[in-house]
Order: sequence, then C-alpha cells, then structure tokens
Amino acid sequence: MIPTLSIDTDRLQRWLDELAQFSEAAPPAVTRVLFSDEDLAARAWVKRRFEEEGLTVREDAVGNIFGRWQPATETGSTPAVATGSHIDAIPNAGRYDGTVGVLGALEAFSALRRAGFRPVRPLELIVFTAEEPTRFGLGCLGSRLLAGAITPDRAAALTDADGRSLDDWRAKAGLAQDLANVRLHAGHYAAFVELHIEQGPLLERQHTPIGIVSAIAGPSSYRLRLIGEGGHAGAVLMPDRHDAGLAAAEIALAVERAAKSSGSPDTVGTTGVFRQLPNAINSIPCDVTLEIDVRDTSLDTRTAAWAQVEAAIAEICARRGVRWTLDTISANPPATCAADLVETVSRACAALNLPSQRMVSRAYHDTLFMAQICPTTMIFIPCRGGVSHRPDEYSSPEQIAAGVRVLAHTLAQAASQ
Amino acid sequence: MIPTLSIDTDRLQRWLDELAQFSEAAPPAVTRVLFSDEDLAARAWVKRRFEEEGLTVREDAVGNIFGRWQPATETGSTPAVATGSHIDAIPNAGRYDGTVGVLGALEAFSALRRAGFRPVRPLELIVFTAEEPTRFGLGCLGSRLLAGAITPDRAAALTDADGRSLDDWRAKAGLAQDLANVRLHAGHYAAFVELHIEQGPLLERQHTPIGIVSAIAGPSSYRLRLIGEGGHAGAVLMPDRHDAGLAAAEIALAVERAAKSSGSPDTVGTTGVFRQLPNAINSIPCDVTLEIDVRDTSLDTRTAAWAQVEAAIAEICARRGVRWTLDTISANPPATCAADLVETVSRACAALNLPSQRMVSRAYHDTLFMAQICPTTMIFIPCRGGVSHRPDEYSSPEQIAAGVRVLAHTLAQAASQ
Repeated sequence: MIPTLSIDTDRLQRWLDELAQFSEAAPPAVTRVLFSDEDLAARAWVKRRFEEEGLTVREDAVGNIFGRWQPATETGSTPAVATGSHIDAIPNAGRYDGTVGVLGALEAFSALRRAGFRPVRPLELIVFTAEEPTRFGLGCLGSRLLAGAITPDRAAALTDADGRSLDDWRAKAGLAQDLANVRLHAGHYAAFVELHIEQGPLLERQHTPIGIVSAIAGPSSYRLRLIGEGGHAGAVLMPDRHDAGLAAAEIALAVERAAKSSGSPDTVGTTGVFRQLPNAINSIPCDVTLEIDVRDTSLDTRTAAWAQVEAAIAEICARRGVRWTLDTISANPPATCAADLVETVSRACAALNLPSQRMVSRAYHDTLFMAQICPTTMIFIPCRGGVSHRPDEYSSPEQIAAGVRVLAHTLAQAASQ
Repeated sequence: MIPTLSIDTDRLQRWLDELAQFSEAAPPAVTRVLFSDEDLAARAWVKRRFEEEGLTVREDAVGNIFGRWQPATETGSTPAVATGSHIDAIPNAGRYDGTVGVLGALEAFSALRRAGFRPVRPLELIVFTAEEPTRFGLGCLGSRLLAGAITPDRAAALTDADGRSLDDWRAKAGLAQDLANVRLHAGHYAAFVELHIEQGPLLERQHTPIGIVSAIAGPSSYRLRLIGEGGHAGAVLMPDRHDAGLAAAEIALAVERAAKSSGSPDTVGTTGVFRQLPNAINSIPCDVTLEIDVRDTSLDTRTAAWAQVEAAIAEICARRGVRWTLDTISANPPATCAADLVETVSRACAALNLPSQRMVSRAYHDTLFMAQICPTTMIFIPCRGGVSHRPDEYSSPEQIAAGVRVLAHTLAQAASQ
C-alpha cells in the first residue's frame, strides 16, 4: 500500500529556479553544454541536493550521476528500480527539458520518505551525461555507454567542433576512471521510468495531465560535408560556380521533402546544423557541413525516407560539381515500452484520479537506451504550446506536481515487490 | 621621357612572403581581418617599408595609410597622382589580393627613384582600410569614407558580429582623430590608378599579361534576417513547422535563379553568409541571417534581379510563416574609368611591348569609390585559374613584375605634367 503523498511544490519550483541559473545564456534562456563551467557547477549543485535528501551519490567515468536510496534491509543484490533524466541544455533552450525528470524524481523520493514509505528494492535516481548532442553531435552519450549501445572506444574517439576529445573534457570534469566501467548489464535494474515534459502539443490540446509512453520513435542522425569551389563573389560568373552553400540549401529542402512525402505523418526530418565556410559576404561558399536528423516510429518508413535523401544528395552534388562525404552519427531502432510498467503507471493515474493517455514519444530520451537493458516507460506532462528547446518552454507547477505524484506512485509500486 | 626601369622582383617577392606571414590562418591560407593583432602587425610592417623607401607616412582617422613622395620643387598645392590598394584579407584567403597593389606600387616608386625619375606632381601610395567587408559587413570602408560615399556618422555606427563598434576597434588601433577628417574632396588627387590581380580567368585564358579596366561592376549587398519558430526536431511534426533555415535555403536558391535568369551573363548573385541559430542538430532553426551580394555592370539589370529576389523573399516567408527584416548594406552604381588614364595605361603597355586588353572589373575595389573624387583606372594582371579569395590564389613573379612596370610607367607619365 502506498500512503497519501504530499508533494512540496514550492521547494521543487525553487530547485528548478536555482538550477536554471547555471547557464551560459541570459534568462529566460538556458544553455548548459556538457562539461562547460556552468554545467559542472550545475552538476555539483545537483549532487549536493541528492546528498541533502539522503541519497548515496556515485559518479561513473562518463559523469552519469547515481543517487541511491538503499533499503536498510537490502543486501545489495536486488536489482534497483531506477528513474532519472538529464540536466544539460542545448544553446538557447528552456528550463524544464530533463530537469523536471531529475528534480521531480528527487521530490518523489523525498515525498515517499516523508510519507514513511519503505522500499523493498533499492531506488536509484540517474542524471545521464549529455542527453543533448550539442558537444559531440551524439545524443544520450551517458545512457548509450551505460547500455552498451556505443563502445567505450567509439566514445573515446568523439571530438567536439574545436577538435577537443571526450577524454579532454572528462579530465576537465575530474573523471579519471576507465570508460569501460560505465556499462551496466541486463538485470542490473528491475525497471526504469523517466518523467519528462512532452515537448509536443498533444496533451495540452486534449487537456490530459499525464501521457504514458508506449513507444519511442527511432532517431537517426547524419553529418554531411560538402566541398565545392570557393572564389570571389564578384568575379566568378554563375556558370563557372560550384557553390557548396547552394548544394546544401537544396539538400536541406530535400530532407524536408523526404519527411513530408514518406506516407507517414510520424516522419520528421530536420537540418539543424548548417555551417558554411568561409562564410564571408563576398566569397563563394566552398565548404559546408550539415547535420541532419530523421526520426520515425516505423523503422521501415525512416529507412525509405533516408534513402530518398541519399539519392537527392548524389543527384544534387553531381549536378553542381560538389564533392561530399556522409557519416552516420547514430541510427537507433524505435523502442517499445514494457507492457506491465505501462500498466503500473496507468493504475497510478487511476488511483490519483488523473486522466491519462498512451502515446508515442517522438523525441528520444535516455529511456530509448535504458530499454536495451531493462523494462522501461516514460511519464509525460503537458508543456505550453508543445514548445521545447526554446527559452519560452513552460510547464506549470501543478502540471509538474501531477507528474511527480504519478512517478512516486509508480516507483513505490515497482520497488515494493 | 621615362627612363628604362629595373624592377627588383626578388625583393618584391620577399616582401610578399613577409607580409603573408601576418595571418590568423596557417599557410598557405592568409586571414587578416581589420585591426586584428595580425592586421595591426602587418600595418606596422608596411609603414616601416614605406619609410625605408623614403616615403612620408600619414595615417588618417580610419587607418588609411598614405606614403607620399614629395618632389623637392613642389610647394604642396599640386594635386598628387595616387595609387594603392589594401592589405586586409578575408578568412582563408590568398596572398596576392590587394597586397600586389600596395607592395607592387612601392616597388614601382623605388624603381622610378632608382632610375632617377623626378616627378612634377607628388606621388602617393595609399593602403585603404578594410577593403574586405569581413569585420563590419561593408567593403571599402576606408575609400568610402575618403570619398564621402559613407558619412562619418554611419561609419561610426557600424558594429561587428560581436557588437563591437568601429570606435572600439579604432581605439585598439590607436586611431584617436575625428572620422570627419578622413574625407578628401574632388580635386585633391589628379588621378588614381590601382594595380590588382584579376580575380577572374579571362587574362589567363587569353594569354594577355595586362588588363586595363574601363568600368567596374556596381556591387550591392544585403542582410536578411529570418525569424521562424524553433522547437524540438523530434517532437514538432512537419506541418506545424516554421523553419527559418528552410526559408533561408529557398532564398539562397532564389538569389542564384535571379542572377542566372537576369538576361545578362554579367549578373552575379551570392549568398556568402548563412548563420543559423540555434544550429543544434536536434533543434528546428528559428533565426537565420543571410548576407547576399548582387553585382552587375548594368544598374538596370541588377535592380531587376534584386526585385526578383525581394519578391521571392516575400513569397517564401509568407508561405512558411517566417518573419523577415531586410537591410541594404550598400548599393553602388557601376563606375566608368577615365578615358585619358585608360589611354595612358594603354600607351605604357605598348611602349613596354606588353599585350593588353580593355576589360570590366567584376569585383569591386577601392577604385570604385576613388572614382567619385578623381579620374581612375585599374591595371589587372592574370591570376592562376582566375582563383581568388582562396589559399591557392597565385600570380607568378613575372606576371607581377609586368604589372609593376606598367604601373610605374603610368604613374610617371601622370606625375610628369
């Protein structure tokens, strides 16, 4: 039996306020890129909060932070029930993406403790390193390594736009251990449940306070380098040009066309990064890097859409006399959530009189990778206008508290058996 | 009568080598942006060379450098014959653009002096500030101010991408005087002749060592800001997007289309700058700045081409739900060179047995603005493959020496009367 919980909404809002202040961008924008000074300060702040709430803190070699609630009666061999999310933020983002799943879970733990709940299984709260791909172009670095979805060697070979390696950044963050120690195997956790803002408009439109995630769209991302021929913008006549910027422009439009014509409304394609050199007004662009993101709930549809983009790249570059190299940054299948966990969340909503609906997560999350080693699901709460990755991202204190309540009930249920 | 000249090709090549070493980029690339540490060091080096060659050096409030050869018999009231060019270089450029017109002119002065030439009029060698638009998005800052083509107030209001003003940069460069003092009026110079690499392929293709510029294409440049709606690249479905990056991509292609379909092979249109925010792989681009350059030898054709681009901007932005603001950075009419100066250069070529051809300069130069206050022309020499604004820009020592010889003869002729 789970006792009635009292959620300390004021303190949770204060925590969100305080965390938002660790930012490279001026408020209301939040920018917190992996292992920047602001990110390191935010990580230290989170670890202090975990310790204040009585959790035992561990940090692994890639900086995943684990706060453990160890039952007095447990000997250390029972797989824990885990929750968590991330605190890094892309440039000019908002303050709720990820942070609600970390600080909301911390409040869920506290509320359970205040109510006298005694777990049978250990509970763990995980702050995953670099869910956002800003630094290395690869999202979910921490959960990928943890679940074995990327090898330590490949992770160690990652470099950022300035050529700085993950090891350089780990040294800055004081993380000296071997990356090979990050991996946890199937069976390590009994379950993983992540609380997150929806980052889409459906819950708000339908006035539903809780979404229960039954599947996560499979993401893929690519880096395309285009090498044309530069030259003076005044002197080289139009027929003599091999403008890499115009090839890139056509390709970005081809990505949009492929996503829109895939036959499924779930296909999305985005050219989020467009870096042009020399990027001078009187010089023909000769070297452009695009980073492209394509996702779908169906692997087949996504594969077909990407094939269409690849054909367009070949045609455009041949016609324009532009050379190209294409790297797959990552390509992961969609994830299906665990039916029994989805059912546990659903029963928690019913017990709390909170309407809920099952849904697909179009954004991916650390849960996509945790699904490779344990049963998972996600609890979504509405965010205003479906807006995310922007300074005006917003979920109300009441919406957040409802999510925390459902998470607490779900964790308590999972940790009681 | 002009004595036979001996050009010191070895020393001139050494000078070009030395100047190329002041660079923010690794060789063979040259990057020398206005008032960077490297640019300031290069400017100091040039002033020392001027002084060593016996020129009286003056620097005006925007950093235009004047090296004057003052005839002993002249009282200071005779309008001088001027030559010169620039030493700044766009990111990742080559070593001949501008520098040949400065160091070549210095060698022309020296060769004339060594040959015992005594000018009737003073000769001046001008190094114009910021011919390249890299810092402030506006080319020919020095010659524009000198000729009154931009007001001191508008120049003072210029800011760079970091928000740093021209006055800030002038203070760094130790330039304390009033910008209003830069302007020189019609009649100040008797003539201005600029030696420059062609930055196009015509002379090389036709095996002609000297081009004599009869007109300069009129440049125009624009800054377009596009504000769409950001959001998570996974979560916002395609029909709900207002992607500023895709609007920008369509507009860049519309610029190309307008230039190609203008009816004149002389129209060129380039989207040299494409700056996208937040420029993160999983975020929909919400804020893009384009800088667009359109040129033509006919003002009417250029105006019609730009009108076509403006219509495309309006249509694309309306269709995509993207807001836009458009600023004209500069728009200058084509310049016609002085027939008698063109004839003087032509006679110099004939006297030196150097084949020459009259041509249009498609790139613009400080001469475009000097033409507003005195008779002008330009002397072009071939460059390999027509390549410029790239590290592999190249003119041979012999090609440069031929240009210096023609310049020296032209200056001597113009300064003898």
